[in-house]
Amino acid sequence: MNGPSLATGQRSLGDPSITYPLWPPLTRGCPKTSTASLAYPVEVDYDYARVSASLFEQEPGPDLARWSPLLPPLHAPTLGEGGTPLIPLEGVYVKDESRNPTWSHKDRLNRITVSAALGAGAPGVVVASSGNHGASAAAYAARAGLPAIVLASADAPPAVHSFVRAYGAKVLAVPVEARWPLMREIVDRLGYHPVSNLTVTHTGHPFGPEGYKTIAYELFLQLGGVPAAVFAPTGYAELLYGVWKGFTELRRLGLAGTTPRMFSCEAIAGGPIARAVDTGAPAAIVPLQHTEAYSIGCSVGGHRGVRAVRDSGGEALLVTDDEMRAAQRTLAAQGLWQEVSGAAGLAAYRKLGRDFDGPVVCIATSSGFKGMGVGMESVEVLTNPTVDDVL
Amino acid sequence: MNGPSLATGQRSLGDPSITYPLWPPLTRGCPKTSTASLAYPVEVDYDYARVSASLFEQEPGPDLARWSPLLPPLHAPTLGEGGTPLIPLEGVYVKDESRNPTWSHKDRLNRITVSAALGAGAPGVVVASSGNHGASAAAYAARAGLPAIVLASADAPPAVHSFVRAYGAKVLAVPVEARWPLMREIVDRLGYHPVSNLTVTHTGHPFGPEGYKTIAYELFLQLGGVPAAVFAPTGYAELLYGVWKGFTELRRLGLAGTTPRMFSCEAIAGGPIARAVDTGAPAAIVPLQHTEAYSIGCSVGGHRGVRAVRDSGGEALLVTDDEMRAAQRTLAAQGLWQEVSGAAGLAAYRKLGRDFDGPVVCIATSSGFKGMGVGMESVEVLTNPTVDDVL
Repeated sequence: MNGPSLATGQRSLGDPSITYPLWPPLTRGCPKTSTASLAYPVEVDYDYARVSASLFEQEPGPDLARWSPLLPPLHAPTLGEGGTPLIPLEGVYVKDESRNPTWSHKDRLNRITVSAALGAGAPGVVVASSGNHGASAAAYAARAGLPAIVLASADAPPAVHSFVRAYGAKVLAVPVEARWPLMREIVDRLGYHPVSNLTVTHTGHPFGPEGYKTIAYELFLQLGGVPAAVFAPTGYAELLYGVWKGFTELRRLGLAGTTPRMFSCEAIAGGPIARAVDTGAPAAIVPLQHTEAYSIGCSVGGHRGVRAVRDSGGEALLVTDDEMRAAQRTLAAQGLWQEVSGAAGLAAYRKLGRDFDGPVVCIATSSGFKGMGVGMESVEVLTNPTVDDVL
Repeated sequence: MNGPSLATGQRSLGDPSITYPLWPPLTRGCPKTSTASLAYPVEVDYDYARVSASLFEQEPGPDLARWSPLLPPLHAPTLGEGGTPLIPLEGVYVKDESRNPTWSHKDRLNRITVSAALGAGAPGVVVASSGNHGASAAAYAARAGLPAIVLASADAPPAVHSFVRAYGAKVLAVPVEARWPLMREIVDRLGYHPVSNLTVTHTGHPFGPEGYKTIAYELFLQLGGVPAAVFAPTGYAELLYGVWKGFTELRRLGLAGTTPRMFSCEAIAGGPIARAVDTGAPAAIVPLQHTEAYSIGCSVGGHRGVRAVRDSGGEALLVTDDEMRAAQRTLAAQGLWQEVSGAAGLAAYRKLGRDFDGPVVCIATSSGFKGMGVGMESVEVLTNPTVDDVL
């Protein structure tokens, strides 16, 4: 710990003049600006004047507690999240988030959201998730001694089913349309703290993106400055928004003179952020087709991603499964095995084909073990192999 | 890089007065002391007088190049291996090696062995492996631009088959008895550099354990001193020996006053290190029964593990699959999902039931995604779930 949290309250993304106390976390978004068809998230405010510049003189290692002044209170113990390596590769830098405790970026968020559940005095946490988010929430809840309920996607890959169940949570595989009604009921009747979304357009947990801010802090130290552009695999865009917020804080603190352009990298099978950016809407809901990038395939979008793209001068990009698989192969051929969605950042950067005046970061979110086809290949055993089989 | 390698040559573990030049790496062990039934490994020597104490004033972060003076020359590029977190848990410290680039400790070894292949001018690398070692070698070879051949275990779990194939290596699933003859043929006929064992008792790659030394360096910095005991999941004992060697170097350099007791933690289904220690033999070969801890289930042992146990005042411990599964559940209930073999260290510590006068480290070697039963659970989908299904 580098000092207590300097969080002061919550602020509406619908109207920044509207503020709320820090507790309880507004897990249903901003009540004053949200409507029946559009929900606005809130974000966390800090007393930035009291942040010591020496906070950014440390190493970008594991355990988010090293950034404690710029995070909500960390009641949940660490699993050593964060501090992931930055690998130069094909002219870009790959931030390998598969190196977190449950092998995806979600661990940064769940250290924060499970801390919020403890701070709120909840008897447990509940999460609706297709895989990574649910397993990560289960791991952090287990570590903190809190019960967890995971409403899992019925069609997750077999290895991911094992993953989500590994941490002792109560896991229910339910149809996707049943997930959110059941989640709301668990929140209302059992008092469990929701660590995934509850609202009509996505607002998510108000504290969650604060965990992702730490990627910006690490990149700033790892690069010795601010990148020109960041490409992030994008589902609900909590990652994109969090990284963007971290860079705006570095500028606000006078440590950085610029901020990067932020590129949302969605599966073309859905793409609610791109729709909202294209139409000028605060958020959008779109039909969702099948995609192998199930970890980022979203129908419901939110305002956070729109804000990150617009405010940073970025763009909302869409990539096909084929483009993501090609980027996945490129990464694997350099020693980094990502699930298909984890390669969306590199895929979108390549598709855009633009030169930037400075370093480009592609976030790679998650281990290849979470992929759709994993464990389904047939294996032929050679009974009398010779060196000729090799040639 | 913190300076060039200070490696000076190779030294026999069979007779320490016998030395060899650093190149070529003696991948068939010490030719002068080995016999037809027993092979002695060689190890790497350094010019310790030229090591700067400031080397140990840095952070224990990723990329083994930070320890370059005390490693063989690093020709292979990094994937950000090492720098893994140390998690306090149930009275011990768990070193979570699932946080490496291919999610096991093997990445530390393969950065070194693929570097040796490049340094030796080999046209490729070949490895016989049940999973982790093969995938890791394939990843580092891919990153270095070298072809790789993996002689895989035919009965590896389905997800591990996908893992080993992910990095573009030539993968052949062959019966276990065919692996070593074929490997020797590939070495002899194709000139490929072997990064796993070639000898009658295990010698392995002479440079390999140098990568594992970095765990000792990290533990020294993370704990602010030397632990009282280290429990390591043990197959061929390269990990155990490497960590032991690292601590002996810290003592030799005058940085540490003590060394830890080293405990080899083998699956009782095999246990060649325990057999050799018990009988006073330099190395042993034992029958191997079935074990779910396939990553450490070994018939053929080597001299390195015997040396680490004996020289450190440690013990050779054996654990059952049930004991490892229980330790696996304990780790998962604290948010760390390991494959069964990865929990052997904690299992053996618990079974020993001894108090130590100082910190105890259990190395947890590998992600739960590599487990035998992963992806094989049946999942029941609830079509009309209610909150009563949760209770």
